[in-house]
Amino acid sequence: MEKTIAVLPGDGIGPEVTEAAVKVLQSIAMRYGHTFHLKHALIGGSAVDAHNSPLPEETVAACEASDAILLGAVGGVKWDNHPAHLRPEKGLLNIRKHFDLFANIRPVKAVPALLGSSPLKEEVAKDVDMVIVRELTGGLYFAEPKRRSEKSAVDTLVYTRREIERIVDQAFEIARGRRGKVTSVDKANVLETSKLWREVVEERKAAYPDVEVEHMLVDSAAMKLITDPRRFDVVVTENMFGDILSDEASVITGSLGMLPSASVRTDGFGLYEPVHGSAPDIAGQNKANPSAAILSVAMMLRHSFGMHSEASAIEEAVMGVLEDGYCTGDLTTAGKRTVSTETFVTKVIEEVERE
Amino acid sequence: MEKTIAVLPGDGIGPEVTEAAVKVLQSIAMRYGHTFHLKHALIGGSAVDAHNSPLPEETVAACEASDAILLGAVGGVKWDNHPAHLRPEKGLLNIRKHFDLFANIRPVKAVPALLGSSPLKEEVAKDVDMVIVRELTGGLYFAEPKRRSEKSAVDTLVYTRREIERIVDQAFEIARGRRGKVTSVDKANVLETSKLWREVVEERKAAYPDVEVEHMLVDSAAMKLITDPRRFDVVVTENMFGDILSDEASVITGSLGMLPSASVRTDGFGLYEPVHGSAPDIAGQNKANPSAAILSVAMMLRHSFGMHSEASAIEEAVMGVLEDGYCTGDLTTAGKRTVSTETFVTKVIEEVERE
Ligand SMILES: CC(C)[C@H](C(=O)O)[C@@H](O)C(=O)O
Ligand SMILES: CC(C)[C@H](C(=O)O)[C@@H](O)C(=O)O
Repeated sequence: MEKTIAVLPGDGIGPEVTEAAVKVLQSIAMRYGHTFHLKHALIGGSAVDAHNSPLPEETVAACEASDAILLGAVGGVKWDNHPAHLRPEKGLLNIRKHFDLFANIRPVKAVPALLGSSPLKEEVAKDVDMVIVRELTGGLYFAEPKRRSEKSAVDTLVYTRREIERIVDQAFEIARGRRGKVTSVDKANVLETSKLWREVVEERKAAYPDVEVEHMLVDSAAMKLITDPRRFDVVVTENMFGDILSDEASVITGSLGMLPSASVRTDGFGLYEPVHGSAPDIAGQNKANPSAAILSVAMMLRHSFGMHSEASAIEEAVMGVLEDGYCTGDLTTAGKRTVSTETFVTKVIEEVERE
Repeated sequence: MEKTIAVLPGDGIGPEVTEAAVKVLQSIAMRYGHTFHLKHALIGGSAVDAHNSPLPEETVAACEASDAILLGAVGGVKWDNHPAHLRPEKGLLNIRKHFDLFANIRPVKAVPALLGSSPLKEEVAKDVDMVIVRELTGGLYFAEPKRRSEKSAVDTLVYTRREIERIVDQAFEIARGRRGKVTSVDKANVLETSKLWREVVEERKAAYPDVEVEHMLVDSAAMKLITDPRRFDVVVTENMFGDILSDEASVITGSLGMLPSASVRTDGFGLYEPVHGSAPDIAGQNKANPSAAILSVAMMLRHSFGMHSEASAIEEAVMGVLEDGYCTGDLTTAGKRTVSTETFVTKVIEEVERE
């Protein structure tokens, strides 16, 4: 197959983990006979520096001419005092909205070899295997009016039936390929938007009789993610709740540096990026964990290109390297050998070639 | 001193833990020579059953004629399918708004004897000692418009400068009496209300030069509460974020059944209640943990009545009973003797009388 990928390295450790992921992608191309055309472009702080915009037109054009987007990370203290429209994260918000990437998908899976790094007791975190499905282009993030005066401020939380239907359908589809359970999280005892959300879930579930559904209030979900994370299979929720709960969930297995994410729409096009941030404190030191970026490439291959064996080959390669006892400095698990970003990638590629 | 307290037992285990707390209150009255007049009234599901309202006028009148309110818990499956205005939690929302109880204060403190019950590793949860200060009468909970149509729904997030100032001041005052650190949580990279919130915190801090302030994004706070809970002293945030984060924080030390809360305004009047819910599954079985209700009475004595020694006497009594090796069934710590609600309360009263 021949595919074009927009590569947006971004800021901080973004460039080095993206470079690592691209190397693995090329090894897959060799091994499976694919051709990947890469279009590099700027986003975030580096784009602000070069073009005075966190999402320059050239970048949008490169993405429009591609089949998928690979993103590193954006942000850094350097741009923290910029006005809102010149902040790195605005690039992220704009690209989501521009490409209608309404479904943010984040798998959280315990890696046995890394449970020592979890803040949770091993018996609580072990065998955790869930996917958080967050609505990404609606709600408080984008709805109008959004207003400031001297004496007060307003944000607006709007959801349409159509917006809820499509994200809920995504969650049901994902649950079908897994353990068949959806937990829909809302605040239906307080919010009108949550009442509509709950109604839509109740309506849509008729189309998925093989999937079990439960409703959970967001405060209760924030507790259960910690006390009983294994109970979750697929969690679906609106944008702001999803922002909070997916970050909360990302720390329970102790392997934040391992977590990939996808932001997709229904036609297969999507943006893939690590869950972790730009970590400016360790940028350029060849010690960032490239696993999340590499596993984001695996998600891209599976989700946007339908390359299932290729995706599994990458996932197995990363797990293989960890099981062989290698890890990067972010993982503090006893008995592991800490290696550089480059060495880790070389080992992953060796595994891909060996499989 | 002579004080009048409205006692609202509510639903589920509410009545039994409230009764326990009242017994401890009476032992304090005896020991310190105070008189507490109690006005019992209905709230929540039991009020819906009796008066077709979750907050009947008689209850409001009883509270208005009192110096403070002690509440048990509200809710239960029995009322889950009622229309919104006849649901138990509406009683809670209405009483907060009616009495302008804008500051919800929740201390979360690790009890060494109970760390075994925490889902977190002991080295992560130990020595945790924070207070979450949540704005309770503004934001998405109450602001208009709140609207539903067939095709969409709207909620509105409004904050005025004045609303933010008073809750931020509360947090600063509380931090002064503690380790002097405030973490203000917002989503200033997305919300206009959060930008105003951050501005007000920056303005108000000039009046508290002895207090250190940091700003943290809500997604980041959701992570750090789990990975590094000891870093927090006083956390202040808006209503919805506070709902989520305070429930998340309530499980980190493993002692949810021990956590009290206060919802207060500036004149000292307040409502005191356990953080835990009505737990209908164990109601009436004499096995609920009365500690949270008892410690809520301690908060009432300190905060509304200025009775500091009395409050400390209660807190020390509860800790003493735990250290003596007694606990209720919710606490699964090895080497403890599980006793009934009544036995636990009797032991607490013995401690109060012995001190
Ligand atoms: C950077 C920020 C605007 C963004 C969000 O809130 O969506 C980030 O936290 C995320 O989750 O991708
Ligand atoms: C019952 C519900 C409306 C309430 C809230 O969301 O405030 C509860 O969760 C709480 O935190 O006291």
